[in-house]
Amino acid sequence: MKVQNPRGTRDCLPEEQITRNEIVAALKNVFESYGYLPLDTPAFERYELLASKYAGGDEILKETFKFTDQGKRELGLRYDLTVPLARVVAQNPNLTLPFRRYQIGKVWRDGPVEATRYREFIQCDADIVGSSSPVADAEVICIVNSAFENLELPFVIKINSIKLLNDILQEAEVDKEKTAAVILSLDKLEKIGKNSVVEELNKKGIKKEAQKKIFDLIEIDGTNEEKINALKNKLKSQSGIAEIEEVLGLCNNLKNLTLDLKLARGLSYYTGIIIETFLKSSSVKTSVCSGGRYDKLLGSFAGNREYSALGVSFGLDRIYDAMVEKRITPKKTLTRILFVPIRLYAESIKICDEIRKQGINVELAIEKSISANLNYANSKGIPFVAIYGEKEKAENKIKIRNMETGEEKLVRVEEIGSIII
Amino acid sequence: MKVQNPRGTRDCLPEEQITRNEIVAALKNVFESYGYLPLDTPAFERYELLASKYAGGDEILKETFKFTDQGKRELGLRYDLTVPLARVVAQNPNLTLPFRRYQIGKVWRDGPVEATRYREFIQCDADIVGSSSPVADAEVICIVNSAFENLELPFVIKINSIKLLNDILQEAEVDKEKTAAVILSLDKLEKIGKNSVVEELNKKGIKKEAQKKIFDLIEIDGTNEEKINALKNKLKSQSGIAEIEEVLGLCNNLKNLTLDLKLARGLSYYTGIIIETFLKSSSVKTSVCSGGRYDKLLGSFAGNREYSALGVSFGLDRIYDAMVEKRITPKKTLTRILFVPIRLYAESIKICDEIRKQGINVELAIEKSISANLNYANSKGIPFVAIYGEKEKAENKIKIRNMETGEEKLVRVEEIGSIII
Repeated sequence: MKVQNPRGTRDCLPEEQITRNEIVAALKNVFESYGYLPLDTPAFERYELLASKYAGGDEILKETFKFTDQGKRELGLRYDLTVPLARVVAQNPNLTLPFRRYQIGKVWRDGPVEATRYREFIQCDADIVGSSSPVADAEVICIVNSAFENLELPFVIKINSIKLLNDILQEAEVDKEKTAAVILSLDKLEKIGKNSVVEELNKKGIKKEAQKKIFDLIEIDGTNEEKINALKNKLKSQSGIAEIEEVLGLCNNLKNLTLDLKLARGLSYYTGIIIETFLKSSSVKTSVCSGGRYDKLLGSFAGNREYSALGVSFGLDRIYDAMVEKRITPKKTLTRILFVPIRLYAESIKICDEIRKQGINVELAIEKSISANLNYANSKGIPFVAIYGEKEKAENKIKIRNMETGEEKLVRVEEIGSIII
Repeated sequence: MKVQNPRGTRDCLPEEQITRNEIVAALKNVFESYGYLPLDTPAFERYELLASKYAGGDEILKETFKFTDQGKRELGLRYDLTVPLARVVAQNPNLTLPFRRYQIGKVWRDGPVEATRYREFIQCDADIVGSSSPVADAEVICIVNSAFENLELPFVIKINSIKLLNDILQEAEVDKEKTAAVILSLDKLEKIGKNSVVEELNKKGIKKEAQKKIFDLIEIDGTNEEKINALKNKLKSQSGIAEIEEVLGLCNNLKNLTLDLKLARGLSYYTGIIIETFLKSSSVKTSVCSGGRYDKLLGSFAGNREYSALGVSFGLDRIYDAMVEKRITPKKTLTRILFVPIRLYAESIKICDEIRKQGINVELAIEKSISANLNYANSKGIPFVAIYGEKEKAENKIKIRNMETGEEKLVRVEEIGSIII
């Protein structure tokens, strides 16, 4: 038997998982601070639902892990957290709107395995359902801003609008039925460069003149305000630009928010604002948090009801990579005190319990010599070692050693909390 | 298309998930306070590994969701968190021992669906690998004790020992090769009653006389100490009783710990102490936290290396049911302030941001009338509503309404934290 994790997956051992949990906790706090509440859904869905044409599309479906239950029902591991949200909204017509929910969970895609591409990864999504107001757009952008501020990762949020892109394509006289295809090509600008995008647009039958017009418009440079003013002068249809102007106005206290007219999203379900987030001075170059408004998707699952909605998805793995890069020494432990009994185990168990009740994480050393335990504390970065033997017992105290300074103190149990700040 | 969750699964909407997250956070805190660190492993494993004879056995394997990846590799959704731990230990021979890890995650079993039996459920496991010391047994028992104390659920921890049961069966002159089968039957005492167990033992060829001896011994009544003293007098082999006496001695400060000689565990991999936990005055009658020592299991995955190990698994769903039963009004929200702007959205977004920086969860009301928002706050149990319009802006203050008392106050942003404790 080969004892090995499945291809394309990995284990997160404590030294990695401690930091991942910190990121998740930070995101959770931010989501909850905005009134977003937790939702949990099953890891798998009915395959039929995942295969719905409104959902991820053929590409994603090809990468869906598929299986059947004992009742021969076709199931698939979820490939995102948006389809489950759409299902929950459809199944619960009495939800109070707007419905703000976050969900942090694993998703799976049975795709080609690459260095930074896994078949199991964690998404952290926050969505607001049931508001078409630009205030909702602004709120979601603020969430992204708060999240990266809290994580202390320098960032820039880029936004654009599918409506505005449609206005631009209309201005360039691109056929209505080709707009989605053109936006799909524009989405690749950053990845494959302008020349290749032009080639694609040629193949898609977009005239040179139209292409020139498109690039003239999306390449407008300057501050957010300058871009908006320039577009206002150049576009006949003003609804897209008015909307994004309003959103930017609502977010005018954010310093890291840029209107990027070249931004597009590959997913076809976006209908309004689109959002991508990039880290500054990090080797993580791809977007760490993406999303947008999708006013049609939920309705397509919910029969006759219509739902405005928008949200963002944070990529835990990329954020983790950036956090690790930033930190010189990753945390190897959450333990504050390694408690080393000299024989007196029963008493030591009680004392450890009392220390824990002061909110301090204490690890009890089992067997091994004092010096082996000091080495262990050193290697893990445990900041304090407590020693308790007959001598300490006689004084009703515990010896606390500061592992950084080497200083030792005899203290009473109830004093420990104030000593080891 | 049927928009529905898969059979045997369920969604946890916020009102349920808030409490579930609280339970998980409480368990996480307890685990970490004992020096246990988080581990994460993939949702699926190589099927071969799950099917290993050392793992769950045939019954559990029949209930394993099985599928293949694009490379035709056979995979299965994990049915517990112990097999993944065994694999991780085998794959990482350089782990510092003892290795204390916790893992909280979903597991899946494609079994018959009943009212309280789901195909997806959450296990919260804490295990210590690499110590054969009774101090480790005591530590794990203390973790269970701390967890239910923190959750404020009245409980009793029942322990017994497979070694002691073996000593008892030896005393009753049960054939060595039948001891596992007898323990399997004893495990059902609580569930099917003594008569049915006797029937099973008859079928298994256990003589009347042996049965009488077994029941005489396991039915010894009294305090932990009285049971131990009685057994000491009656058993030739003393190693099992000595071990459990030591563990009980180490835990002598725990008030809710009972030596239950009738306790057995169905899983065959246990080798030493076994643990089950029951809630008092709760309609949840089955064990909410079970585990024990399994000194052979990990070695069976790790080639030539041997590993002592023990741990416990908390059943989140049952604990959740007990928590809900205990609480008269479940939390519907985590929001402390519903912030209702009268038009001034851009300013309100900034003010909300400042309040959040004080550590307060604020939900921004989007559209809707003030009275509709007051109703919403009432229905969700949001304790405070903030109102901000031109009048408040002119005074550079915010109106805060206490939803319980109806009291209203005009306060500065920076005062809000102290007002809404």
